[in-house]
Amino acid sequence: MSASSITDRFPNWVRAAALGLAVALSSSGQALAEADPLPSWRDGAAKTAVLGFVETTTDPASPKFVVEDARVAVFDNDGTLWAEQPVYFQFLFALDRAHEMAAADLAWAATPALKAAAAGDVAAVLAGGEAALVELVSATHSGMSVEAFTAEVAAWLAEARHPTTGKRYTEMVYQPMLELLDFLRAKGYETYIVSGGGVDFMRAFAEPAYGIPPENVIGSLGNASFVVVDGEPRVMKDPGIAFIDDKGGKPIGILRHIGRRPVFVAGNSDGDLAMLQWATAGEGARFGLIVHHTDAAREYAYDRESHIGRLAEALDAAAASGWTVVDMAADWARVFPGDPAE
Amino acid sequence: MSASSITDRFPNWVRAAALGLAVALSSSGQALAEADPLPSWRDGAAKTAVLGFVETTTDPASPKFVVEDARVAVFDNDGTLWAEQPVYFQFLFALDRAHEMAAADLAWAATPALKAAAAGDVAAVLAGGEAALVELVSATHSGMSVEAFTAEVAAWLAEARHPTTGKRYTEMVYQPMLELLDFLRAKGYETYIVSGGGVDFMRAFAEPAYGIPPENVIGSLGNASFVVVDGEPRVMKDPGIAFIDDKGGKPIGILRHIGRRPVFVAGNSDGDLAMLQWATAGEGARFGLIVHHTDAAREYAYDRESHIGRLAEALDAAAASGWTVVDMAADWARVFPGDPAE
Repeated sequence: MSASSITDRFPNWVRAAALGLAVALSSSGQALAEADPLPSWRDGAAKTAVLGFVETTTDPASPKFVVEDARVAVFDNDGTLWAEQPVYFQFLFALDRAHEMAAADLAWAATPALKAAAAGDVAAVLAGGEAALVELVSATHSGMSVEAFTAEVAAWLAEARHPTTGKRYTEMVYQPMLELLDFLRAKGYETYIVSGGGVDFMRAFAEPAYGIPPENVIGSLGNASFVVVDGEPRVMKDPGIAFIDDKGGKPIGILRHIGRRPVFVAGNSDGDLAMLQWATAGEGARFGLIVHHTDAAREYAYDRESHIGRLAEALDAAAASGWTVVDMAADWARVFPGDPAE
Repeated sequence: MSASSITDRFPNWVRAAALGLAVALSSSGQALAEADPLPSWRDGAAKTAVLGFVETTTDPASPKFVVEDARVAVFDNDGTLWAEQPVYFQFLFALDRAHEMAAADLAWAATPALKAAAAGDVAAVLAGGEAALVELVSATHSGMSVEAFTAEVAAWLAEARHPTTGKRYTEMVYQPMLELLDFLRAKGYETYIVSGGGVDFMRAFAEPAYGIPPENVIGSLGNASFVVVDGEPRVMKDPGIAFIDDKGGKPIGILRHIGRRPVFVAGNSDGDLAMLQWATAGEGARFGLIVHHTDAAREYAYDRESHIGRLAEALDAAAASGWTVVDMAADWARVFPGDPAE
């Protein structure tokens, strides 16, 4: 996607070795080290806080130093690393799949929720509440192996375009957050996604889009089963939800997967409140970051009243908790990778 | 634990950089590269197969070369990395905890299963079947935060001794497997535990014992909840089992956690059959290894009729599947780290 994320396709040790070589061989090592790691962030309190935190936690002489093994950074995905309006992109994928499946099999859309989905009627599906959403996800995200599903998502991402911007969905990642991911990794932080989205869906793009490999993606889980068909063993995606990685599920998902309390945590909605609270309550240096969508011109402006990514309790808690609230309109010089810096 | 596992406390890139430096600066680089990486393995078919596989999958000129990102190696724990007789060590931990909890609260052992556990009556607990085991695990593995539980396990491991060998449980890890883990990591493989044991239990010792960090431990999961008590956010261990990482659960657990099909898979029982089948059915080079407990003198001899670690179907499938069966008595010059080489 971006030039910076391409470098993440190399394993950490290659990049570390390359950096070491550059410092050893070149008299410009100092100049390199002083280049702005966050060029799409405008100077201000948020950028200063991020840079200061990473500096102090990676300086062995600092009382706030964090050993490299403990440098765990977790990021929500929808609304934190890429956009989430007018509805979650995974929901738009499910609608497109419903449309295809209904066209291939006229009997497929047998319920009101599936009929609405096949017709692309977002409002009607949402009116059905959580039951309709679970039905839609079950019907469109099951009946194939995990690997076949991820390949379908990748194929969809290569073709589909966002309904209002006309961009590819993977072009709607936030350039400032890509820079932050790169910067944290360059400083020895391990970066993870912790999202309410489906883990198999996200793994279709997390590595090329963010430099986050499959094993660092934590998300909601569908039911699954192991079967051997004609001698071929497969893990199948089954109907039903096994685990929802949202709200209180996020700290649980993090502990189950990583087994450590993160040092750096970023989110954008009340779904991230529990992980913000839990991570930043840990001993030693901790950093909580909230992306506040304030930019109706370049992206979207929403918070307390939004049906997607509602941000109220977490925003209220931010000041008392010492979390950094990023004002997208004020703090970011650029939103999407293709945009000009302003 | 062992000298070799100490080196694993350094991150991969430090070891890779150190290796690169050694090769570049020293004329003894060639000699270093030729040192036997598996000194506790006797020369034979198993050792030759392991060395040959790692050599061909890490040689860029080989048609079986595997890129570093895909070098995923998974290991069962009980009976594969450490001993599991006379019963799983986690079960012995649960018995000790039941004894303590019953002593502290006379009303605690209110059911036949808990009474038997508190009295250390292994046979009576096992006679209660899976229901008694779930009851015992629920009662002894819940009611505290995940972090407090792991600290309790660590304290137990520091004191408790195996009922027949008198060793610490962490002294009953297999030296040849420690060498194999080290060798794979030195060759760019990422090593994981994939065990039916509880993930929070294993994380108490996996890193010091095996050099496997918390985020690379995959296991069975108990129920959990997020709570805020007196302003302190915690993830609590609750009664009940959320996921059993055994048999068909192992491929599911691997895909949920890693999102990749392993290249190298090691187990010792029919509980590992599904992950052996699934991993080695993948395209390209794959390696399946079964530790066969044939050594009544130095460890234990058991397979088809054992109540723990039953090995029958997987043993029958090994030849046709091309898996390497390690004959512990014949193939290992040493079993536990403290033993003399024979």
